[in-house]
Amino acid sequence: MKLEEFKDPSELNDYSKKQLEELAEDIRHFLIEKLSVTGGHLGPNLGVVELTLALHHLFDSPKDKFIWDVGHQAYVHKILTGRADQFDNLRQYKGLCGFPKRNESEHDVWETGHSSTSLSAAMGMATARDIKGTDESVVAIIGDGALTGGMALEALNHIGHEQTDLIVILNDNEMSIAPNVGALHNVLARLRTAGKYHKAKEELEQLIKKIPALGGKIASTAERVKDSLKYLLVSGIFFEELGFTYLGPVDGHDLDDLAENLKYAKKTKGPVLVHVLTKKGKGYEPAENDAKGTWHGLGPYKIESGEVVKKPGPPSYSGVFAETLKKIAREDKRIVALTAAMPGGTKLDLFAKEFPKRMFDVGIAEQHATTMAGGLATQGMKPVFAVYSTFLQRGYDQVVHDICRQNLNVVFAIDRAGLVGADGETHQGVFDIAFLRHLPNMKILMPKDENELQHMIYTACKYDGGPIAVRYPRGNGYGIKMDDELKQLPIGKWETLKDGKDACILTFGTMIPVAEEAMIQLEKQGISVKLINANSAKPLDEELLHQLAKLNVPVLTLEEAALQAGFGSAVLEFFHDNGYHNVEVKRMGIPDEFIEHGSVSELLEEIGLTSANVLDQVITLLPKKRQRA
Amino acid sequence: MKLEEFKDPSELNDYSKKQLEELAEDIRHFLIEKLSVTGGHLGPNLGVVELTLALHHLFDSPKDKFIWDVGHQAYVHKILTGRADQFDNLRQYKGLCGFPKRNESEHDVWETGHSSTSLSAAMGMATARDIKGTDESVVAIIGDGALTGGMALEALNHIGHEQTDLIVILNDNEMSIAPNVGALHNVLARLRTAGKYHKAKEELEQLIKKIPALGGKIASTAERVKDSLKYLLVSGIFFEELGFTYLGPVDGHDLDDLAENLKYAKKTKGPVLVHVLTKKGKGYEPAENDAKGTWHGLGPYKIESGEVVKKPGPPSYSGVFAETLKKIAREDKRIVALTAAMPGGTKLDLFAKEFPKRMFDVGIAEQHATTMAGGLATQGMKPVFAVYSTFLQRGYDQVVHDICRQNLNVVFAIDRAGLVGADGETHQGVFDIAFLRHLPNMKILMPKDENELQHMIYTACKYDGGPIAVRYPRGNGYGIKMDDELKQLPIGKWETLKDGKDACILTFGTMIPVAEEAMIQLEKQGISVKLINANSAKPLDEELLHQLAKLNVPVLTLEEAALQAGFGSAVLEFFHDNGYHNVEVKRMGIPDEFIEHGSVSELLEEIGLTSANVLDQVITLLPKKRQRA
Repeated sequence: MKLEEFKDPSELNDYSKKQLEELAEDIRHFLIEKLSVTGGHLGPNLGVVELTLALHHLFDSPKDKFIWDVGHQAYVHKILTGRADQFDNLRQYKGLCGFPKRNESEHDVWETGHSSTSLSAAMGMATARDIKGTDESVVAIIGDGALTGGMALEALNHIGHEQTDLIVILNDNEMSIAPNVGALHNVLARLRTAGKYHKAKEELEQLIKKIPALGGKIASTAERVKDSLKYLLVSGIFFEELGFTYLGPVDGHDLDDLAENLKYAKKTKGPVLVHVLTKKGKGYEPAENDAKGTWHGLGPYKIESGEVVKKPGPPSYSGVFAETLKKIAREDKRIVALTAAMPGGTKLDLFAKEFPKRMFDVGIAEQHATTMAGGLATQGMKPVFAVYSTFLQRGYDQVVHDICRQNLNVVFAIDRAGLVGADGETHQGVFDIAFLRHLPNMKILMPKDENELQHMIYTACKYDGGPIAVRYPRGNGYGIKMDDELKQLPIGKWETLKDGKDACILTFGTMIPVAEEAMIQLEKQGISVKLINANSAKPLDEELLHQLAKLNVPVLTLEEAALQAGFGSAVLEFFHDNGYHNVEVKRMGIPDEFIEHGSVSELLEEIGLTSANVLDQVITLLPKKRQRA
Repeated sequence: MKLEEFKDPSELNDYSKKQLEELAEDIRHFLIEKLSVTGGHLGPNLGVVELTLALHHLFDSPKDKFIWDVGHQAYVHKILTGRADQFDNLRQYKGLCGFPKRNESEHDVWETGHSSTSLSAAMGMATARDIKGTDESVVAIIGDGALTGGMALEALNHIGHEQTDLIVILNDNEMSIAPNVGALHNVLARLRTAGKYHKAKEELEQLIKKIPALGGKIASTAERVKDSLKYLLVSGIFFEELGFTYLGPVDGHDLDDLAENLKYAKKTKGPVLVHVLTKKGKGYEPAENDAKGTWHGLGPYKIESGEVVKKPGPPSYSGVFAETLKKIAREDKRIVALTAAMPGGTKLDLFAKEFPKRMFDVGIAEQHATTMAGGLATQGMKPVFAVYSTFLQRGYDQVVHDICRQNLNVVFAIDRAGLVGADGETHQGVFDIAFLRHLPNMKILMPKDENELQHMIYTACKYDGGPIAVRYPRGNGYGIKMDDELKQLPIGKWETLKDGKDACILTFGTMIPVAEEAMIQLEKQGISVKLINANSAKPLDEELLHQLAKLNVPVLTLEEAALQAGFGSAVLEFFHDNGYHNVEVKRMGIPDEFIEHGSVSELLEEIGLTSANVLDQVITLLPKKRQRA
């Protein structure tokens, strides 16, 4: 049977081990082949082939619930639930989503994208089950990285306290952990999962009681002996302390080992954690031997050679940020860089090479990173937290309460601001202006190109008046000439890119070329438009806005960011607060909906952030007689 | 010496035990007396008298840094750092803040209010020290409750990984924990802190090696034996697993025990956790015997009798919410209530009495609570998360990513919305409209009184179109008559409270009486104002706004919420998006700054949200000839 014809995972319930092994082989080939064309998260999915098969073999989805933390490892699950035929359009516009998606399949019961949410969701589902009195299993599959996120720890704590029946699969693919797992672990884990746990425990208990000295000391603390033995027996004392039954470590590529432990987990009362060791990239040599994380998520590649297809292009915004920060840190000893598990994505790995003691990867822990930055700032350091726009959402309260409220000199380097494309709605960096703009003391800048970015990063690092955010898009700059000398830009002083008398466009960042394209057409129609690089969403350039109001020309605001409460709203607020009730303002931006995956240009087209629409809007804004001109 | 004359904590370095004990006695009397008049956090502060004395006795503040988690237990620290003379104005307008405040004293190195931030801040300060090469100690004091907050766990994980020198004082005042602490714990803890730890460990190691059977089984796993012994020796295996040296449990009211352990902690390399057992309310009987948490934070009381002075008044908004939810839950089996460690404050304790299996207190874990609510909603339940406005900030990403993005039927009962008074800037619930309004699928309601609240809660519980937030203020309602029957209100349909033709005021919640007061004066001047109860900030009542725009009267928006990106901005957006560029709109609300503590009326006066200003603004908005009328 071809994978494309596989429609119902319940078939797997009756599969023999041999059949499952053959299917695993087919799935690996399928993934390696399909993703060589579309790109995607190859490494994580090759790592969970057997785990996913074992889950569908032993449980009954969708009655039983699988919750995939982060969700980029759910491709195998998608293949097994009738979506193999859609992989040619993976992560493409209107195509298969790279994460679980409820409207794709009843087998996707929870959507993810950000990390560490699965345990809380599972707890909600298991609690609903218990209140309703049904009997389905709830299984969360979470990676070792995601487990460091605060909300996952909050959930472990609460689940352990409530002793709710649910299963957590800890998908542990960090190679550095494997060597720590000694021989005893495996022996004892096997004993335990074979049901011999209690026998082994009794034997050891008898043993210890025979030691006179030790026995004497702990005679009155039977509980302590029990706990101590438990620690001898299992490596998962941390989880046991939290109230979980710990099973493992399990070889995540051994179907028998997986089956044995999952069966045991299924019948165990209370919360169970199954510690599964997997290898990212399993079965494809280039991905297995990947030290840099290249094969975690990537674009197209050549299957034979494992060569990743690279499009030559100008430096990325992330790269320009990191190189600039290095340059600044050479002179300014106060600079400390922080990342929450994104050293590669933010390019801070480059910074760490030169300044290993001044770069901290705190794990998936944006809350901690934000407040740690605050602590550094109180002691005169200049912390720079490089973070993707949507991930900073995790640190919102810390930005409010710790950084803005204390007005601390923290620099937020907000990467992936604006639409990000293939990762889709969980990753679109469109809310940061809206969630930062209303915070006292915050400043929000965005450059028009990579050269302005380097000056903005420098400006932010030199600024000692409180928190400041510099947001920049995913992807590459324009390849323009970079100034040799870094310079401080005046904060809240916009740049007039072109003068004009009929209307004014206020825009910034990625939307400037869109405006420029429209203006070429407008000029052909004899309409002269003033174009402003509004590179600071907060503070606004009030002087310029006062002048503008007095010109009494219509104003178009244009932003690749949420329209509600965004930059355009700030402009409206200014005009009304200052009594310029007559200025006609039209706002363009991201509408009040979540934007799915696709290429950025397709998405911009869909939501109407195009030069054609800018053209139309400007014309509509003009007085009637001008419109007809 | 009177406490009021105590200026410099360095004096304490040379104090004898007897002097410290006398001072402890004085401080207790001082606190009990002063707080009986002003109110405040009596219980937590009586619990940390000896701990705070021991810290200032053994460390050198402000060189050494003390970071008080949450911060309501910092009164003793304030007394010892020259602020005893300001306690008559504790938590009052322009008076001493109830939390650490950097502008009050150089000894307050970090400001708190929300929980679980201290470890991250300490990590930042300790890291700054290590980069700069200085040698101060950094000490975070955190309660057992605050430790369940995700960011504290993120920080423990990172600190343990980095092995940074810092001290965490776990101030464990949960009485339920004390009985778990067995005799062995204390014996071993004393051994350890007396420097005999290593000796005891060696003896035990030798012992175990003598057991042939056990020795044989674990011969190749020396590391495991060591860890097992460690577990025999200390109760803090959880922390040891995370990389901390665990000391304790320590009697938090025994100055010798405290001194011994703090000295040991100070000289220990790497992170240390000192587990201190304290008793809330220690030394004042009514507070010591407090089972309900009454004495955690409270208003004035009578010292002799321990009688809390209660002002009779109408039911609180929280109480109306909880009673309404009970009524709904009796009919609607889908209702599940959630709180993050605030069962008393939100009054969900009343709900739990009737529905113990349908109420979950998840601990200080707003992120988990939000996403758990999402999990419940996917299974057809109707979760209601009651949460203070500022604490929901912690769950912002979960609201965005899990709830709004999946459009799940979760009800957010946002308590303490608007200014809260004495708790000050960390607790003012003024940002929620701004941080929720830009989220697709979210609805935001606010009632004008407790009767409308009960109908809104009912409406929210009946609504199955996605997430919905009902925000309501701290404190009591107006004592108005409550309807017997709950009814569903149309969402996004505002209520015209009074008709008028010269101007229109759009407002909601607590600002309605302010507007009404102004209107009495305006009427006397012959100015007739339309008053709208804009009880839905999202969606807006578009039909009404269209009509209003056509009337062409000036509009005043008035909200006890952040002005930037708030309700008034939404109104501006509507008018401009619909081409009503000519409507004159003036927005009144909370300015772009953090609002300190004081009574709500004093604060409203300070920021100009008064009927006098509403009067002025309406007059200013009127056409010139009307102004002179």
